[in-house]
Amino acid sequence: MSTTTTWLDLPDDTGYGLNNLPLGVFSSHPGAAPRTGVAVGPWVLDLAAATGDPVHATGTLNDHLAQGPAAWARLRSRLIEWFTDPAHREAVAPHLVPRAEVTMHLPVTVGDYVDFYSSQHHAENIGAMFRPGSPPLTPNWKHLPIGYHGRSGTVAVSGTPVVRPNGQRKEPSDTAPTFGPSRRLDIEAEVGFVVGAPSQLGTAVPVGAFAEHVFGVCLVNDWSSRDLQSWEYVPLGPFLGKSFLTSISPWVVPLAALQVARVDPPAREPALLPYLDDAARWGLDINLEVRLNGEVVSRPPFASMYWTPAQQLAHMTVNGASIRTGDLFASGTVSGPERGQRGSFIELSWGGTEPLTLNDGSTRSFLQDGDEVTITATAPGTGGGRISFGEVTGGIVPAR
Amino acid sequence: MSTTTTWLDLPDDTGYGLNNLPLGVFSSHPGAAPRTGVAVGPWVLDLAAATGDPVHATGTLNDHLAQGPAAWARLRSRLIEWFTDPAHREAVAPHLVPRAEVTMHLPVTVGDYVDFYSSQHHAENIGAMFRPGSPPLTPNWKHLPIGYHGRSGTVAVSGTPVVRPNGQRKEPSDTAPTFGPSRRLDIEAEVGFVVGAPSQLGTAVPVGAFAEHVFGVCLVNDWSSRDLQSWEYVPLGPFLGKSFLTSISPWVVPLAALQVARVDPPAREPALLPYLDDAARWGLDINLEVRLNGEVVSRPPFASMYWTPAQQLAHMTVNGASIRTGDLFASGTVSGPERGQRGSFIELSWGGTEPLTLNDGSTRSFLQDGDEVTITATAPGTGGGRISFGEVTGGIVPAR
Repeated sequence: MSTTTTWLDLPDDTGYGLNNLPLGVFSSHPGAAPRTGVAVGPWVLDLAAATGDPVHATGTLNDHLAQGPAAWARLRSRLIEWFTDPAHREAVAPHLVPRAEVTMHLPVTVGDYVDFYSSQHHAENIGAMFRPGSPPLTPNWKHLPIGYHGRSGTVAVSGTPVVRPNGQRKEPSDTAPTFGPSRRLDIEAEVGFVVGAPSQLGTAVPVGAFAEHVFGVCLVNDWSSRDLQSWEYVPLGPFLGKSFLTSISPWVVPLAALQVARVDPPAREPALLPYLDDAARWGLDINLEVRLNGEVVSRPPFASMYWTPAQQLAHMTVNGASIRTGDLFASGTVSGPERGQRGSFIELSWGGTEPLTLNDGSTRSFLQDGDEVTITATAPGTGGGRISFGEVTGGIVPAR
Repeated sequence: MSTTTTWLDLPDDTGYGLNNLPLGVFSSHPGAAPRTGVAVGPWVLDLAAATGDPVHATGTLNDHLAQGPAAWARLRSRLIEWFTDPAHREAVAPHLVPRAEVTMHLPVTVGDYVDFYSSQHHAENIGAMFRPGSPPLTPNWKHLPIGYHGRSGTVAVSGTPVVRPNGQRKEPSDTAPTFGPSRRLDIEAEVGFVVGAPSQLGTAVPVGAFAEHVFGVCLVNDWSSRDLQSWEYVPLGPFLGKSFLTSISPWVVPLAALQVARVDPPAREPALLPYLDDAARWGLDINLEVRLNGEVVSRPPFASMYWTPAQQLAHMTVNGASIRTGDLFASGTVSGPERGQRGSFIELSWGGTEPLTLNDGSTRSFLQDGDEVTITATAPGTGGGRISFGEVTGGIVPAR
């Protein structure tokens, strides 16, 4: 909880105290126009109504995000003042809506979606399974944060049904590929970064300018079909194995809420090229939890990531590629060194050879129709307590 | 030329007769609001003014494209009626602007950009150079049209300067990567397909529904840095080696103009899975020309492509991925079987080992600062003559 005094009646463990204040897009009843809200305790503050600013009534965070870091800071200061000074209670309180009653929408209009591959533990696990006999890390892995573009048009808000994808699958014993529903449907538990302020084409964003461009953080489930992926991905990378759906949490936690969550990333060896030097310390102590049908199956630690989001942004733009408001880049699967910290089922079940045993005694390697996966996360908040990232969830429905 | 009679005074070899009628976004003078136009002969017809329909005044083709194929056909019929019946001359002629005087803009707001790899000749050439000692085609190549997502935010209109990208390069003799300007800056001469009507998430677009979703065709130069690409692309595919810029031609040629350009694609062996069966015959007899500083260096034949755009669309959506108005997918480098038909300098110079000799006696393997590359194309048009795709051009400026 935050130690800041507030006239709001906030539970101690709310996760949505004045030290969090994530932004999202909600509608208060069916048919209502989606608008920007801020989560505080069990409520959503209707920012369009409370501020009267049309920038918050557009149905996407992009318009506010495009205003840049000074505007983000002004809004945050204003919210804290409103919630701490009882003089504002009368004006503000009528615009609080119970969070349990609202419908959440995709928070941003996504420009480009980039997915990195920045957990050494994950990369080593996947490399060992996908390229047996080769070193698990490719020679470039410790020199640059490997990433690729994903499909921005299929980034959807938490709760969107996950239709099991069809596609080409080829088992090692098959002489030719077959077509049908994926048999190895998986998750990737990730953390995503939402770009606010754009950059100019032809100009790199230095690693130190991370917080001038990135507004905040959400949770990402990069649903993955391992059988489609393994057949298609050489030589140009993952495509249909990933593009059917990427789910994100509806609340975007501002970087401003994560100052006390910043930690040193792991030691890097060999030394980095100067443009990737990250004295700025943008490792983040975010603890994820992955639940399958309500049961915790993994607790991936984001602090273990080899590459930080500041390095990812610097790398992504060092060739002059521009970023736009609403661009989303994700960390790649977060996997820690322990089995119970792996962020995907292919790792948790070691490619299906070591199925998980669930509480009801059943076993599971990949996702079945009807399964529901929910990822949650928390981080230390200013003033004590932990702030919540909410959740990203999705249920599997049969292939069409 | 078109045999259709028109009151317009069109040169025989215009390339922009009534059998073409490509759409683009133009402004008639600096500061004027960009709006939709149609190229006809040496003019642009201002569609916003001529139709009075605000859908053509938004500065992007997306709004008209989203109206779907019936609306595209109605507009096309109306334009042909206007240009053939002299009764319309008085109302229409005042809205014709000399094409040489307008500024062209990016025609569509690009949703997702996907780049395929559908020329067998190109894939075999690149495979032989990038993976010496392995079969040039990966085992999946003849079973599916390999593709990957590119960066939609750096798709720009023809004429945008090409800033030489910086990045990590590692020569085989280097013990570690170095950082600096790309030394192997290249082109990829491609043909792009612009999506008009969207599809639903979770639902595949059948190969036969190509023309219900795709509005038209443009030229694409997928600028490529071969040194950045070769170091980064294993295991997740091209990223910074491509993302700095993709240039497209400003005029989008409707599929309706390409009916007589349709040809059978090459015979495919092994047989295709049913979802890729393409009885619809969407091979296209488009002849490309690549000029370096005005000199023709290659004439790639699009009719030689192994995979058709209808197959690419069917594959791209077979996993349930949705398409949006403005999505762009490109063919991949178009290379024919002959040396003079290769669509990239890495192929034309065979990785720099066989530099091109230019007319002035100089040699060239990759692009130098100050170079300008222009890609043009034509196809057979209804009624005889050839229709023009205009051009996509770009000049190289030094790294920043």
